[in-house]
Amino acid sequence: MKPFLVLLILLVTAAESASIPHVRRFLGHFAGSRLRNNAGAALNAAQYETRFFRQRLDHFSFAELPDFNQRYLVGNTAGLWSPPAPIFFYCGNEGDIEWFSENTGFVWEIAPSFSALVVFAEHRYYGLSMPFGSKEEAYKDAKSLSYLTTEQAIADFATLITDLKRNMSAEDSPVVLFGGSYGGMLAAWMRLKYPHIAIGALASSAPILQFENISPPESFYDIVSSDFKRESMNCFDVIKNSWDVLEAQGKYGDGLISLSGKFRLCKDLNNTEQLSDWLDSAYSYLAMVDYPYASSFLMPLPANPIKEVCKKIDDFPDGTDILDRVFAGVSIYYNYTGSVDCFDLEDDPHGMSGWDWQACTEMVMPLSSRKESSMFPPYEFDYPAFADECIQSYGVRPRPTWVTTEFGGHDISTVLKKFGSNIIFSNGLLDPWSGGGVLQNISHSIIALVTKLGAHHIDLRSSTTDDPKWLVELRETEIKLIKGWINDYYQDKAFTAYSIIPLFI
Amino acid sequence: MKPFLVLLILLVTAAESASIPHVRRFLGHFAGSRLRNNAGAALNAAQYETRFFRQRLDHFSFAELPDFNQRYLVGNTAGLWSPPAPIFFYCGNEGDIEWFSENTGFVWEIAPSFSALVVFAEHRYYGLSMPFGSKEEAYKDAKSLSYLTTEQAIADFATLITDLKRNMSAEDSPVVLFGGSYGGMLAAWMRLKYPHIAIGALASSAPILQFENISPPESFYDIVSSDFKRESMNCFDVIKNSWDVLEAQGKYGDGLISLSGKFRLCKDLNNTEQLSDWLDSAYSYLAMVDYPYASSFLMPLPANPIKEVCKKIDDFPDGTDILDRVFAGVSIYYNYTGSVDCFDLEDDPHGMSGWDWQACTEMVMPLSSRKESSMFPPYEFDYPAFADECIQSYGVRPRPTWVTTEFGGHDISTVLKKFGSNIIFSNGLLDPWSGGGVLQNISHSIIALVTKLGAHHIDLRSSTTDDPKWLVELRETEIKLIKGWINDYYQDKAFTAYSIIPLFI
Repeated sequence: MKPFLVLLILLVTAAESASIPHVRRFLGHFAGSRLRNNAGAALNAAQYETRFFRQRLDHFSFAELPDFNQRYLVGNTAGLWSPPAPIFFYCGNEGDIEWFSENTGFVWEIAPSFSALVVFAEHRYYGLSMPFGSKEEAYKDAKSLSYLTTEQAIADFATLITDLKRNMSAEDSPVVLFGGSYGGMLAAWMRLKYPHIAIGALASSAPILQFENISPPESFYDIVSSDFKRESMNCFDVIKNSWDVLEAQGKYGDGLISLSGKFRLCKDLNNTEQLSDWLDSAYSYLAMVDYPYASSFLMPLPANPIKEVCKKIDDFPDGTDILDRVFAGVSIYYNYTGSVDCFDLEDDPHGMSGWDWQACTEMVMPLSSRKESSMFPPYEFDYPAFADECIQSYGVRPRPTWVTTEFGGHDISTVLKKFGSNIIFSNGLLDPWSGGGVLQNISHSIIALVTKLGAHHIDLRSSTTDDPKWLVELRETEIKLIKGWINDYYQDKAFTAYSIIPLFI
Repeated sequence: MKPFLVLLILLVTAAESASIPHVRRFLGHFAGSRLRNNAGAALNAAQYETRFFRQRLDHFSFAELPDFNQRYLVGNTAGLWSPPAPIFFYCGNEGDIEWFSENTGFVWEIAPSFSALVVFAEHRYYGLSMPFGSKEEAYKDAKSLSYLTTEQAIADFATLITDLKRNMSAEDSPVVLFGGSYGGMLAAWMRLKYPHIAIGALASSAPILQFENISPPESFYDIVSSDFKRESMNCFDVIKNSWDVLEAQGKYGDGLISLSGKFRLCKDLNNTEQLSDWLDSAYSYLAMVDYPYASSFLMPLPANPIKEVCKKIDDFPDGTDILDRVFAGVSIYYNYTGSVDCFDLEDDPHGMSGWDWQACTEMVMPLSSRKESSMFPPYEFDYPAFADECIQSYGVRPRPTWVTTEFGGHDISTVLKKFGSNIIFSNGLLDPWSGGGVLQNISHSIIALVTKLGAHHIDLRSSTTDDPKWLVELRETEIKLIKGWINDYYQDKAFTAYSIIPLFI
């Protein structure tokens, strides 16, 4: 049994589904969730206008290619903005931009106190920002998908900002970038690549070091595991021991049928891997959204959901079947509302496929599971097998070292110590992606804000009355730092250009 | 009469030549010069090996395209280099890399004292670094040329360096970039975009601000003109007054024939514009290579060639025909050796065409000539006409604002004051391109070295016994700064990573 995640890949044909098992793509899983925080949606939607911008498909060549419409949301919150007040620009992730807007209440909430204009830009190949006129055409094959790259997406943002500023006579407005998860990676990278376009970036839960061998590939599962261990050692042990039991049961004559019954699956299992992947996903997502208040980012969940899962697992009387415990546990994730009749393992509610492409091209983030510290079955990331799957499924060969060539990552501290400025890397240590994040200050203005109890980009979410003190303080620190960048910028503009005397003449 | 430069464009068909008159492309004219400093060639060639590296044609998409071979020269001068000693990397310009190596003696000369490895990398679509197997195929049409962009060229360098370092186990070797003119632009931009790959850049005579309206478009001709005025006011006046005389003579019945005779042209003129362009080129190139010692960078020339030209022009007895004076003057440029029988205006000795493409796509550098301060006929850069010519000649529409979107330039001082480090912008004020250069320090490590008497990237040339004191000092300062970068880097590596305490936890 391997901790693989089976995903539907909508690419090959609409009817046929293929799987790329040899990679984890949790980041991508945030992409197309159909779940909405409807309250937030209503709140923010009222604040913005939806617009479209004509983008080049390839910014870096002059190949004749059709332009496409990029969607973006613009909100002049409370009507306070006029140039040169700041522009807060959210770097859209791998999904529908409205969803990210709804789940990034922080930006909407703080904008009025900065008199800032808010822009949420959708990432190409997601939501309504489809090249070639439709998702069907955009996702047709490797050729049509070949312009789905981070560099192009960041260049989209740069072009959009430049055009927006010109059209609004806002050339002097400082732009601050925001992003969470993959969007946070984009925000940090964009600040580094386009310092003339954005004065700073808040990159929340951005695992920019989860490439090649920079961060240990085991950190993701180690952190998920320690999140469970932290709640209860028994819970960790139950889960850790459950995989062998599950696999053994699957080997019985009618083991798969009885497992399917026990786990209330809509369709009988073909193998135990399907089931272990489903469990694996639940634990991993639970760790990402282990927020201290009830939320419905990926699924409707109670506050501190891992605590609830472990409570279920632990509270059974001695002698209860280990798989019954596990099922009760993951039901917190998959069925908190209690409305699910049966579970469909093949129904990927997040409708990913763009991220699968990205994971098979540039976003090669190796994840392994080590025997001792992980509650998951041991697994070592197998690049050749992974590459083969990508070639088979997408007809594309990954470029596993390209991200570090293009954006760096190795020895980031030495590189950025005297280069670059105004980036906040915020990470919560409950978040399994924090293992690939920047957790230590690099310089006086490339700052790591680390919270022990934070999960995946919790700081970007709307404030709630249940926010713990550390979260309130974290956001206050972020606001203070961003204010500092903006003030510096205005000050520099006043005393502008050429104040230092050149050496020669 | 307009100060246009007529160039052969080898693109359309081999037989047909078209002209893109509405732009100056002097930078490009450094590209394919057939003239060689043969002494230098012999000297440096002995020091390097020629190698080829397999490059992706499009780094920023996954479109299926053929790889190509990029040429590069590697020299372990005096055999002193071994990791982690530095690597000096020259960012190849728009031409044959051997020629740049020959004319960049500075890098070869200083390498041994750093125990540095020297690499000169050829720019894609120039020299032997041809996509699609041959120059003919690479330059076939807009489609085949579409990957000739600066971003791709810089990504080539980044990929090459990364691979070289890995192959030589030299991951810890700091890389210092060098470049002159367009190559200097590449070096500066590469340091800004790939700080993880190169620790610093010496960008000599790099007019990175000669885009859009950042530097005044008139500066180029103003500087050429003042270079002549500086030698003699009469010389300036003669040239300034010659254009009208020339045009008037061309209007006579047999005026063009008599002009062709007076200027010893191989073929009779079709219009006076051809001739004025030819003169214009001479003056402009003379200003670029107005070195204080005899040289043969573009043409064999005496020391201080403008002084010699003006001497010719001034030394005629009163009453001498103004065009005779002018002809004698430019003969210094076109025929210093005295070996030319007749002048062929259509013979472009520099064999440009890649730069024409680049000027028609990204490198849109507007140049105008203003009435009072310029000795050239007044001319205002006409973007729409220029764009039309590009569409007609290449089937490509320029993107005149792309360079500033991708690389910045506007308000560079504010942008880079607290971002980036370790760049030297060296400029000589005799160089007409210095008007588009960075002439003032931006920060304590983004430094402008300006010399009153320097011409186009003179600092990168081999030292000579005739070097003036200011040039010796300029190079010493450059060496000192580069040493500082390298020492800082070694120091940082020793005390590496994570020494500053994070705010939270």
